[in-house]
Amino acid sequence: MNKLKYIPLATAIALVPTLGAAQDAEFASLAQTTFIFNTLLFLIGGFLVFWMAAGFAMLEAGLVRSKNVTTQLTKNMGLFGIAAIMYWLIGYNVMYPGDGNWMMDGVLGTISPKDIKTDIDAGGYSNASDFFFQLMFCATTASIVSGTLAERVKLWPFLIFVVVLTGLIYPIEASWQWGGGFLSAMGFSDFAGSTLVHAAGGFAALAGVIILGPRIGKYAKDGRVVPMPGSSLPLATLGTFILWMGWFGFNGASQLAMGTLEDVDAVAQIFANTNMAAAAGAVAALILTQVLYRKVDLTMVLNGALAGLVSITAGPLDPTLFGALWIGAVGGVIVVFAVPFLDKLKIDDVVGAIPVHLVAGFWGTLVVPVYTDGTSFVTQIIGFVAIGAFVFISSFIVFSILKAVMGIRVSEEAEIQGLDTTELGMEAYPEFSKG
Amino acid sequence: MNKLKYIPLATAIALVPTLGAAQDAEFASLAQTTFIFNTLLFLIGGFLVFWMAAGFAMLEAGLVRSKNVTTQLTKNMGLFGIAAIMYWLIGYNVMYPGDGNWMMDGVLGTISPKDIKTDIDAGGYSNASDFFFQLMFCATTASIVSGTLAERVKLWPFLIFVVVLTGLIYPIEASWQWGGGFLSAMGFSDFAGSTLVHAAGGFAALAGVIILGPRIGKYAKDGRVVPMPGSSLPLATLGTFILWMGWFGFNGASQLAMGTLEDVDAVAQIFANTNMAAAAGAVAALILTQVLYRKVDLTMVLNGALAGLVSITAGPLDPTLFGALWIGAVGGVIVVFAVPFLDKLKIDDVVGAIPVHLVAGFWGTLVVPVYTDGTSFVTQIIGFVAIGAFVFISSFIVFSILKAVMGIRVSEEAEIQGLDTTELGMEAYPEFSKG
Amino acid sequence: MNKLKYIPLATAIALVPTLGAAQDAEFASLAQTTFIFNTLLFLIGGFLVFWMAAGFAMLEAGLVRSKNVTTQLTKNMGLFGIAAIMYWLIGYNVMYPGDGNWMMDGVLGTISPKDIKTDIDAGGYSNASDFFFQLMFCATTASIVSGTLAERVKLWPFLIFVVVLTGLIYPIEASWQWGGGFLSAMGFSDFAGSTLVHAAGGFAALAGVIILGPRIGKYAKDGRVVPMPGSSLPLATLGTFILWMGWFGFNGASQLAMGTLEDVDAVAQIFANTNMAAAAGAVAALILTQVLYRKVDLTMVLNGALAGLVSITAGPLDPTLFGALWIGAVGGVIVVFAVPFLDKLKIDDVVGAIPVHLVAGFWGTLVVPVYTDGTSFVTQIIGFVAIGAFVFISSFIVFSILKAVMGIRVSEEAEIQGLDTTELGMEAYPEFSKG
Repeated sequence: MNKLKYIPLATAIALVPTLGAAQDAEFASLAQTTFIFNTLLFLIGGFLVFWMAAGFAMLEAGLVRSKNVTTQLTKNMGLFGIAAIMYWLIGYNVMYPGDGNWMMDGVLGTISPKDIKTDIDAGGYSNASDFFFQLMFCATTASIVSGTLAERVKLWPFLIFVVVLTGLIYPIEASWQWGGGFLSAMGFSDFAGSTLVHAAGGFAALAGVIILGPRIGKYAKDGRVVPMPGSSLPLATLGTFILWMGWFGFNGASQLAMGTLEDVDAVAQIFANTNMAAAAGAVAALILTQVLYRKVDLTMVLNGALAGLVSITAGPLDPTLFGALWIGAVGGVIVVFAVPFLDKLKIDDVVGAIPVHLVAGFWGTLVVPVYTDGTSFVTQIIGFVAIGAFVFISSFIVFSILKAVMGIRVSEEAEIQGLDTTELGMEAYPEFSKG
Repeated sequence: MNKLKYIPLATAIALVPTLGAAQDAEFASLAQTTFIFNTLLFLIGGFLVFWMAAGFAMLEAGLVRSKNVTTQLTKNMGLFGIAAIMYWLIGYNVMYPGDGNWMMDGVLGTISPKDIKTDIDAGGYSNASDFFFQLMFCATTASIVSGTLAERVKLWPFLIFVVVLTGLIYPIEASWQWGGGFLSAMGFSDFAGSTLVHAAGGFAALAGVIILGPRIGKYAKDGRVVPMPGSSLPLATLGTFILWMGWFGFNGASQLAMGTLEDVDAVAQIFANTNMAAAAGAVAALILTQVLYRKVDLTMVLNGALAGLVSITAGPLDPTLFGALWIGAVGGVIVVFAVPFLDKLKIDDVVGAIPVHLVAGFWGTLVVPVYTDGTSFVTQIIGFVAIGAFVFISSFIVFSILKAVMGIRVSEEAEIQGLDTTELGMEAYPEFSKG
Repeated sequence: MNKLKYIPLATAIALVPTLGAAQDAEFASLAQTTFIFNTLLFLIGGFLVFWMAAGFAMLEAGLVRSKNVTTQLTKNMGLFGIAAIMYWLIGYNVMYPGDGNWMMDGVLGTISPKDIKTDIDAGGYSNASDFFFQLMFCATTASIVSGTLAERVKLWPFLIFVVVLTGLIYPIEASWQWGGGFLSAMGFSDFAGSTLVHAAGGFAALAGVIILGPRIGKYAKDGRVVPMPGSSLPLATLGTFILWMGWFGFNGASQLAMGTLEDVDAVAQIFANTNMAAAAGAVAALILTQVLYRKVDLTMVLNGALAGLVSITAGPLDPTLFGALWIGAVGGVIVVFAVPFLDKLKIDDVVGAIPVHLVAGFWGTLVVPVYTDGTSFVTQIIGFVAIGAFVFISSFIVFSILKAVMGIRVSEEAEIQGLDTTELGMEAYPEFSKG
C-alpha cells in the first residue's frame, strides 16, 4: 500500500476538487461516515453518562440511613428531571454563547429556548446528540451535591438550588472553558471535567454543607465522630459499579469525535486509562485502609474507585497506563485521608462527595501538566481556583437566600425521626424491622 | 464543497452504473458502511431494550410486598425466556407475513421456525439484528402485564398467557402496523409503540385484572382504598432508571437506520426528545403531588417519568424539545389522576401499569398529529381502538379459558401468607424480620 | 445492481493499485472505517463485559447470607481492581507472546509493562481497545471464583490468589488458544471462552473449595444438606440480568471485528444466539424444577440462564437459533442436576459457580463440533482437559501455599458470627433486624 493508505479527513476533502462529480459522491461518504461516528459517540456516551444518575441514586440510597432513603431517591430523580429542563431552557445557551446561538429565539435572547435542529453543513455531528451529551454533564454536577447534604436538607429548597445550579451556575463556569471562554484562552486544561463538573459539584456541596451544618449527633460533645453507617452496602456498591461504567462515556466521549483513526484510538486509550485509574484508586484504598485500620473499609474502597475516576478525568488521554495507575492511586489515597479530615473540620459530608469530587478533582486537575504538553501547573491552579471561587460563592449566596426565605433544614424532630416519614410520608422499606 | 457533498444513498447507488468497476468498489464501501451502521443500531438498541426487562423486574420487585417478591422475579425472568422462544417459534413470522417469509419452512407454513440467515442482498441490515431487536419489543409487552396482576395471579397460568401473548396476540396486532397491515395502510402512526407495545400490554393487563379481581383487603367495605406499600423503593427507583436508559434504545433504534446523516440525526433527536419527555413527566408528577397532597409521592414521580416515556413513544422524532416537554408532562399528570381513578373502579393494578402504559399510551398516540404531518386524530383513535379491542378481547378469552381450566388465582390463604412461601417455597429476604 | 455491489474488503483493497492517488484516498476511507468499527466493537463489548463484574457482585451479594455480604462485595470490587492491574503488569504480555511484544520493555522482557501505543499500520483496530476488552475477560475469570468460596475464605488470601490467577494462570492458559499457542494449532475451538474463561474460573474455584472445605453446618452428620438461603433474591436476579446483558459483549465482541458486512452479520447472529441460549436455559430450569420438585426454584432459573449463556459461549456463531435453543436448554438441565450432585460430593459451592461455569462450560465446549466445521470432539476434550488440569493443579498449589503460609479460612467463631463483623467490622444492612 502506498503512503496514502491512511490520510486525514482534511487531506481527503482537499483532494475533492481534483476529481469529478462521481468522486465527490464518494468523498461525501467519507464526510458522512465521520458525522455518523461522531454523533454515535455522543449518543453512546450520553446514555452512559445518563446511567451515572442511577449510580448516584443507588450510591446515596445505600449510604444514607433507611429512614432517609425515599427522600434521597426523590432528590436524585427530581434533580435529574430539573437539570434536563433547565439545561435546555437556559443552560445550553449560556454555556455556548458563541456557538451560533442556534437555540436562541425571540425576545428573551440568549436565554430563550429554541428547538434543536441540526444544521448539517455546520459541523461534524448532530447538534441534538451534542445537546443530549452535554446535558448529562450538567445533571452530574447536581447529582454530586445531593449526597453531601443528605439526611437533613429539605426537599424543595434543595430542588430550587438545583434549578439555579443547572440553569446558571454550572453553565456559566463551564462556558469559561468548554464554551470558549477565558480559561480556555488561558490554556487551562480539563478534558472531561475534573474541575468543571466534579470539583464544581463539590464546591456547591461544600457551600451547602457549611450553611446547613452537620447532622444531629454526628459530632459528639467529647469530640468523637459518631459513625452513621449506610443502610445498604450492596446498593452503594452497585452505584459505584454503575458510575464506573458510565465514566467510560463521561471521559471517552469527551474526545468529541471518533470518525478518524486518531480519534477512535484516543477514545480507546481513554477507556483503558479510565479503567486503570479506577482500579488503582480502589486497590490503593483497599491496601491503605488495611494498613491504617487493620480492616478493609468497603465504603473507602468504593470512594477510592470513584476518586481514581475523578482524578483521571481532567486528562484521561495523555497519560500512559502507568500514569493512569499512579494518578488514580493517589486519588484513592486522598480519599482515605480527606474523609476523616473533613470530619475534623466538622463538615458532615454524608457520602464523601467532597473528598471524592472536590479534593480528588483538584488533584486530577493539578496533575495534568505531567503528561499533557502545553499546560502549566499555575494555569491549572488558576482555573481550579476561579471555578471553585465562583461556584462556592454563588452557591453560598443561593443557599443563604433559600435559608432566609424558606429554610433549608428540616426540624430537629423530623431529622431524628427521618425525612421519609416526616417530609414524604413514605418509607423506603416499610416492612423491615429496624433493629 | 459542491452540492454533491452529501448525497443520499439511493442517489449514490444510482450513479454506480455510470462508473467503472473500480468506482463500484467504492460505492460498495458506502453501502457496506450503511449496512454496518444500521445493524449496529439494532444491536445497541436491542441490548438496551433487553435491559428494560431487568427494569421491569426491579420496578415490580420493589413495588410488591416482600412476601411476593420471589414470585414476581420468577415471573419476570420466566416471561422473558418464554417471549424469546415464542417470538422465534411463531411470533416473528406472524408479525412479518410479507417479509419474504424468510423464517418460514416446511409443512407448518408461516408458523414454522427457520434459522435466521441473512440475505445480504435483500436489505440494509442484518436480519439477525432485526430479529434480536424486534424480539425485545415482544418481551416488553409481556413485562407490562406481570406488574398489574402481581400478588395474586398463579405462576403457571400467567406464564401460559405469556405464551399466547408473545406467540400470537402481540405479533398479530403488531403486524397490522409494523408488518405492513391495514393500520399502516390507513396512515396510522406509532413510531416505537405507544399503542402497539405499551397500550397493548396495558390492555392485556386490564383484561387479566378484571377477571382476576383486586387483592384481598385492597378495597375496604367502607369504600376506603387500603394502601399496600411496596417493599423496596430503591429497587423501584433503580427499575425506573433502567427503563429510562433502555428507552433510548426502544425509541432511538426504532428509526431502524443510522447509516445516513439524516438517519443518525433523527436518532439523536429521538434520544433528546425521549429524555426530555421522561424528565418532564417526572417533574410534572413531582410538582402535582406536592400541590395535590402537600407531599411528593416518589412512586408517582417514578410512574410520571415512565408515563412521559410512553407518551413520547408514538412520535419521538417530530416534536420539538418543547413539544417533548409538554407531551411528557401531560403524561405525568395523567398518571397522577389515573392511578386513583382506577382505584375508584376497584381495578387493582399493583404497580400502576395501566395508567402508565395504557392511558399514557393513548395520550401519546393521540397527540402524534400535532407534530407529524400526514397523520390524523381520527386515524390515531381508530388504530388505538382496533388494537385495544383486539388485545383486550383476545386476552380476556385466554384468561377466561385459563380460569375455567386451571384457575388463575391463588387460594385466599396463599394470598394472605404470600406467594413466595406458598407457591415457590422460597423467600426473597429470608433473614429480615418483617415489622 | 451488478455483482460488485458488496465486495469484501480484501478485494476492494486489491483493486487499489489499479487506481490513481485520488482513488487511494477513498480506499483509505474504507480501511479507516473498518478500523473504527472494529475498535468501537471492542469498546462497546468491553464496557458490557466490565458490567458483568457488577453482575457477579450483585449475584453473589444476593446469594450469600446477610452476615457475609459486605465481605463478598469487597472481594468483588477488590478482585476487579487487582485483575486490571495484574493483567496490564504481566498478563497481557504473557497471553500474547507473539504479538510483536508491544507491551514489552526493559530488562524484565516479556513480563514488563509498557504503555499502550497503537501502531496504526499494524492492524485493524486500536491496541488500547483490544487491551481494554481482553482485560475484562481476565477479570471475569476471577469473578467466578469468589462466589464458590464465599462465606468462609479470608479476604487477603483470596485476593492474593487473584493476583496469581489474573497475572499468570489465566494468561498462560488463554495464550494456548487465543495467544496462538498449541491448542489453537491443534484445532481446538472456543470462540468466547466456555473453557478458557468459564471452565477455567470453575476449575480454580474447585481447587479452592476442596482445600477450603464446606461451610460449618452445611452437611449435617445425618447426611442431610442444610439449605442456607441467600439474603436477597432481587439482587441475585439483578445480577443475572446484568450478566445476561454483559454477555452480548462477551460473545458478540469476540468476533473481534465488525467492519465488514460478514463480520457485523456474525456479531448480530451471535447476539441472537446468545439471547436464545440464555432464554432456553432459564425456561428449561423453570420447567424442570417444577417437574422434579413441584415448585419452581428461582435460583435454579437464574443459574439456568447463566448456564445457557456459558453453554453457547464456545460456539455462539455457527449454531442455528434452534441450535442455540437446545444447547442452552441442556445447559439449564445440567445445572439442575449438577447442583445437588456437588452437594452429594460435599463440595460446598455457595452460588453454584462450578455447575454453571465448569460443568456447563464443558458441555458448551464439547458440543461445538455439531455446528462448527473443522472441529472434533476429541480435540475439544483435549483442550478442556489440558486447560482444566493446568488451572486446577496450579490453583491447588497456590491455595495450598496460601493455606500453609497464612491460612485461607476464617476462624470457626468468625464464620458463625459472619465475616462482615469479624473480618471487616462493617455490616451490609446494619439497620435491619435479622429474624
